[in-house]
Amino acid sequence: MSHNTFGHLFRVTTFGESHGPAIGCVVDGCPPLIPIDEADIQTFLDLRRPGTSRFTTQRQEADRVRILSGVFTDEASGKQVSTGTPIALLIENTDQRSKDYDAIKNLYRPGHADFAYDAKYGLRDHRGGGRSSARETATRVAAGAIARKVVADVTIRGALVQMGPHKINRDAWDWDETTRNPFFCPDAKAAAFFETYLDDIRKAGSSIGAVIEIVAENVPAGWGAPLYGKLDADLASGLMSINAVKGVEIGEGFDAAALSGEANADEMRIGSLGEPVFLSNHAGGILGGISTGQPLVMRFAVKPTSSILQPRHTIDRSGHESEIVTKGRHDPCVGIRAVPVGEAMVACVLADHFLRHRGQIGEGAVWPANRSR
Amino acid sequence: MSHNTFGHLFRVTTFGESHGPAIGCVVDGCPPLIPIDEADIQTFLDLRRPGTSRFTTQRQEADRVRILSGVFTDEASGKQVSTGTPIALLIENTDQRSKDYDAIKNLYRPGHADFAYDAKYGLRDHRGGGRSSARETATRVAAGAIARKVVADVTIRGALVQMGPHKINRDAWDWDETTRNPFFCPDAKAAAFFETYLDDIRKAGSSIGAVIEIVAENVPAGWGAPLYGKLDADLASGLMSINAVKGVEIGEGFDAAALSGEANADEMRIGSLGEPVFLSNHAGGILGGISTGQPLVMRFAVKPTSSILQPRHTIDRSGHESEIVTKGRHDPCVGIRAVPVGEAMVACVLADHFLRHRGQIGEGAVWPANRSR
Amino acid sequence: MSHNTFGHLFRVTTFGESHGPAIGCVVDGCPPLIPIDEADIQTFLDLRRPGTSRFTTQRQEADRVRILSGVFTDEASGKQVSTGTPIALLIENTDQRSKDYDAIKNLYRPGHADFAYDAKYGLRDHRGGGRSSARETATRVAAGAIARKVVADVTIRGALVQMGPHKINRDAWDWDETTRNPFFCPDAKAAAFFETYLDDIRKAGSSIGAVIEIVAENVPAGWGAPLYGKLDADLASGLMSINAVKGVEIGEGFDAAALSGEANADEMRIGSLGEPVFLSNHAGGILGGISTGQPLVMRFAVKPTSSILQPRHTIDRSGHESEIVTKGRHDPCVGIRAVPVGEAMVACVLADHFLRHRGQIGEGAVWPANRSR
Amino acid sequence: MSHNTFGHLFRVTTFGESHGPAIGCVVDGCPPLIPIDEADIQTFLDLRRPGTSRFTTQRQEADRVRILSGVFTDEASGKQVSTGTPIALLIENTDQRSKDYDAIKNLYRPGHADFAYDAKYGLRDHRGGGRSSARETATRVAAGAIARKVVADVTIRGALVQMGPHKINRDAWDWDETTRNPFFCPDAKAAAFFETYLDDIRKAGSSIGAVIEIVAENVPAGWGAPLYGKLDADLASGLMSINAVKGVEIGEGFDAAALSGEANADEMRIGSLGEPVFLSNHAGGILGGISTGQPLVMRFAVKPTSSILQPRHTIDRSGHESEIVTKGRHDPCVGIRAVPVGEAMVACVLADHFLRHRGQIGEGAVWPANRSR
Repeated sequence: MSHNTFGHLFRVTTFGESHGPAIGCVVDGCPPLIPIDEADIQTFLDLRRPGTSRFTTQRQEADRVRILSGVFTDEASGKQVSTGTPIALLIENTDQRSKDYDAIKNLYRPGHADFAYDAKYGLRDHRGGGRSSARETATRVAAGAIARKVVADVTIRGALVQMGPHKINRDAWDWDETTRNPFFCPDAKAAAFFETYLDDIRKAGSSIGAVIEIVAENVPAGWGAPLYGKLDADLASGLMSINAVKGVEIGEGFDAAALSGEANADEMRIGSLGEPVFLSNHAGGILGGISTGQPLVMRFAVKPTSSILQPRHTIDRSGHESEIVTKGRHDPCVGIRAVPVGEAMVACVLADHFLRHRGQIGEGAVWPANRSR
Repeated sequence: MSHNTFGHLFRVTTFGESHGPAIGCVVDGCPPLIPIDEADIQTFLDLRRPGTSRFTTQRQEADRVRILSGVFTDEASGKQVSTGTPIALLIENTDQRSKDYDAIKNLYRPGHADFAYDAKYGLRDHRGGGRSSARETATRVAAGAIARKVVADVTIRGALVQMGPHKINRDAWDWDETTRNPFFCPDAKAAAFFETYLDDIRKAGSSIGAVIEIVAENVPAGWGAPLYGKLDADLASGLMSINAVKGVEIGEGFDAAALSGEANADEMRIGSLGEPVFLSNHAGGILGGISTGQPLVMRFAVKPTSSILQPRHTIDRSGHESEIVTKGRHDPCVGIRAVPVGEAMVACVLADHFLRHRGQIGEGAVWPANRSR
Repeated sequence: MSHNTFGHLFRVTTFGESHGPAIGCVVDGCPPLIPIDEADIQTFLDLRRPGTSRFTTQRQEADRVRILSGVFTDEASGKQVSTGTPIALLIENTDQRSKDYDAIKNLYRPGHADFAYDAKYGLRDHRGGGRSSARETATRVAAGAIARKVVADVTIRGALVQMGPHKINRDAWDWDETTRNPFFCPDAKAAAFFETYLDDIRKAGSSIGAVIEIVAENVPAGWGAPLYGKLDADLASGLMSINAVKGVEIGEGFDAAALSGEANADEMRIGSLGEPVFLSNHAGGILGGISTGQPLVMRFAVKPTSSILQPRHTIDRSGHESEIVTKGRHDPCVGIRAVPVGEAMVACVLADHFLRHRGQIGEGAVWPANRSR
Repeated sequence: MSHNTFGHLFRVTTFGESHGPAIGCVVDGCPPLIPIDEADIQTFLDLRRPGTSRFTTQRQEADRVRILSGVFTDEASGKQVSTGTPIALLIENTDQRSKDYDAIKNLYRPGHADFAYDAKYGLRDHRGGGRSSARETATRVAAGAIARKVVADVTIRGALVQMGPHKINRDAWDWDETTRNPFFCPDAKAAAFFETYLDDIRKAGSSIGAVIEIVAENVPAGWGAPLYGKLDADLASGLMSINAVKGVEIGEGFDAAALSGEANADEMRIGSLGEPVFLSNHAGGILGGISTGQPLVMRFAVKPTSSILQPRHTIDRSGHESEIVTKGRHDPCVGIRAVPVGEAMVACVLADHFLRHRGQIGEGAVWPANRSR
């Protein structure tokens, strides 16, 4: 049963509010003997950390992660390794400015979860969005860092491919470029354009949406499971669970609707090593809910930040009409920091499916090995 | 753990292959005392049933459903009602032509799950796609008919809104029209166009994709749960688990990427009865993973049928290159019959979330009732 | 979420009522390429089948099992093997005498679940106990037959070790004897005594309880998982879920309360092959929730059949006091047929834990192999 | 999937090792608006806290609990209440003496989980038993304190009813007495005896087992669910998951095996208020896996502490034979502190089943209310 837990064999349970004392997560099911230390996790947290450029919230959080359990010194290697027991990770909140939210504690911010939480629970921690804050995604990134170690052979990378209506030039795609600009954008020219574009939006107190693409390479054929544990269904669920996400697609995605069967079919040939080769990847690496050995390709759409300085109509908890302006420190485009978060969710899904596949099938059950059975 | 089970409190487990003796499902967690008879379920099965027009497969399946357990005569009403125990539904396969598939039993049909199943399991039931056949969706529709009864106040309707590159005219939307044409299309003119359009595709031995929209009205505010049991995440998972689906979006979906924060915000006012009123529904009825009381609006993209008469390159199980033409009886646009299937999945997700919400919160916890707590 | 599903990776969902058209189950998560045919399953069903001696109910059920899905012909071996997809098993009910129950349809039989079902669900299928009938255990035995194939190296055997207050002589234990008497009793003398003893009880229209012991040999060290997925916790849950079971114990069980630490400790030595050797098995093969490589030893207590010919006080659905005599065809000691059922549940738990262990750890992770890591 | 999570709708995930920096848990699914503060939880932790008498380990742990998330000030009452989001609880370890364990880090202590963990994971945190330490049960007690609030009308009490072979006199049962002696023993005379008895055992460097009884009163009829979510199966699983537990029984338990059907049947009458009345409670308040409205009565057996000063044969990680004496600070009878732990597990199971019942059925579905449906 899923409320705040994600995954089945590789399970992540997160907790914490934006302005509470701490946020954190428990990673359960991590196999033993995997090297894990705080520095490894910190590297990924720093990619998502706020306050690193003018294009993200100016809240200053060090986002220092502490491992509370589940790792121990391996005598053989001298390294800190997982023990197979739950790994608890804790990140203290240090730069809350809860007073910023006093004025709006009884108001429902349009586009935010304020009204929905109140309707469900009858109360909410209004400070910085409480549990619904994107601050929770720091714990996903931390868990994702561990997940990456579980599927160490897989390379998972994300990129911002659209901001507002502006799509990048895919022919200019350069993964290295994603580490050189504050947008995780693989197209240098587009990144330069986004700088001016987003500055204008930020100065206007507005915000804008984005589309992120995640690619996972070196996933062997065979992960996933029909029919309700499909790899694509779990990826869709994981990505849709990220704050502000409104759409998910795999491979051709919505464009597949416009294709003919012959245009969409990924034909196959035999490679020089006798291995199966696909001539295209319209499927995004998944057929029938199971990986094909091709790169997994997926995209998700992030809506514009709902916290804006433009006044909007709203109501309060007592049933009165009002107007609201959301001050505080916000990202003008939450889609930017959604890139490492999306990568982390994909890593968690893949770690889970790797363990599930190994459980049901065992290792090495990949074509053409199966032919000899 | 999900392989062939969907849902948590309202759980559906399906089984069966396209050319096996029968397909079926077990619906577990249905509350007691709900009137359920075979005719109710049959009504929805008939909407999805093959062979009803020239635009779907010509396989002739009566799709007669039998209830094997979980219902009993209520002495008070004389009706057949649920008992709270598992409801098993069985549909026998009667029109298999397995020989149609003999020629391709060792070939991997491009776009189909053949290769992926072989890579995972080391063997597959090749007849009609076996477990990966869309025939399984009949059991989803049957389960969905029961789910609708659990959330009887909710209206769930679906419509085909795009075929190939051709989108319908949303201003011409008429729900009644969806029952008058073989496409579940709410735009009469578009339906007329699709008739010719799809005939040409069918005759060419080709196929085409589609986009389906599902709307669920009268869902109260408060269903869903942050952060990994979000209503939209579960809808995304449910829809993505349907055969051939490559994308899912909620509300504005991918278009949200291009919107500014002020354009995307759904402002609120107080209605004439003191109730909260949203001035727009960009969110598609879900904020923070929880329903807002607005209609739920979602879309999913279906790729073109992979079974086509155009020859394609492929390989066989022995590692040889080959060419393939997929004969047999196929839908030129699987998106059409995906409409009742999509509705059924939404019904199942909503029934599950209704029960989960009632469990955690109790009934009647909807704004503004909460104000008086 | 468990209502009618048991297990995580090896999952069994059962359905059906005692007097409905059929009972059955769906086995999900069975690994592929395992030989499975109806005859294999039938062998175990026949052990539990009613009407085979005068010490079980005289209801005549052939208990013929049909496989509806999930198996296919393996070209290599020509055998029927699992495909990795859900295996649905169906057993039709053929000898219901529902009229036997008309007189008591509004009465709550003491010791039965009648009142509890009515209190929970507001109605019940009263015929033969409906869903609460031990008839459902036939589907467990069928699922257990498949589970045994998943853990083919493990030997799972059960024995009746106590009937009423009479315990068997453990020094006379002979497994072969369990196949020679109608009680699955490993002590020939005790079996002879039980014959007379139970005849007297049967003729008096009374009933009696029993204790069953299950032993699983050749379970490797390492299965199970702390802390809430403990092997013993799952065995306890599985056995306690069987009809009429009121107690479960592992190893010394309740006798452990009376032992000192030094008496209870299972000391260790190194065997002639360098393998770890335990000098005793007070633990019953499980420490910290994880198997140790010793035989798993467990017992469960079955209460006397609640259907008796002695008149008892009760009430009816309308709130009136009454008296009841339960006619019909009943086992004087349900503990007898609980033996194959208990074996089946243990098989299912072990199959599940084998897959879970393989998922989290991989294969071959057993001491002393780990030493070399 | 359960590794370190217990429950379905009311879910507890625990983490932490005996000698790590902290232990803790995340309570997910707690309904909103329930008053929860640290003092409430501390009260129960103090009952289990070590070092309070000479009969428990002399390790000095304050066991101070901190709430990290999931509670917020309710404006209406001014109290701290649950928000419906995950409640994270943290207890820092302060009195580890890890050096005590250096000498035995490569030795497998008989009766402990050392060997089993090594066999499964290939390494273990040997300090104080690491994850397998009973120290983890502090987090269960903390979670149980919250669970009690969810089922506030239910009274859950535990008592030690046997130490070694010595059973208490049940006719002398006085619940108040359990708060007056260090054994949670309801029989004053037995408690006085146990004082001398256990002193002798303690001084001899030995240990002893015990049996604990838990009674839950005021559980309404209808909680639980056939067939694999039975209330008794979940209680059995929960109690068996506690360290050192080797047996669980409900109502008559193993004694039921010796009863005749007529002796075991709980007859029914109509009470003065028209309510159903049972004339006995052999069933322990559960029939068919569903509560009957009678008190739930269950017992569990705890083996003697495996840490003893008597030298025992064992082996080390390198495969050499050795001898071991377990120094350190240990409880001579872990059954004593198991009393509040058992209560906590029962509270968690009941909170979970209350929410599950409310989800599937709604509230108030208790006989005779159902009669009027």
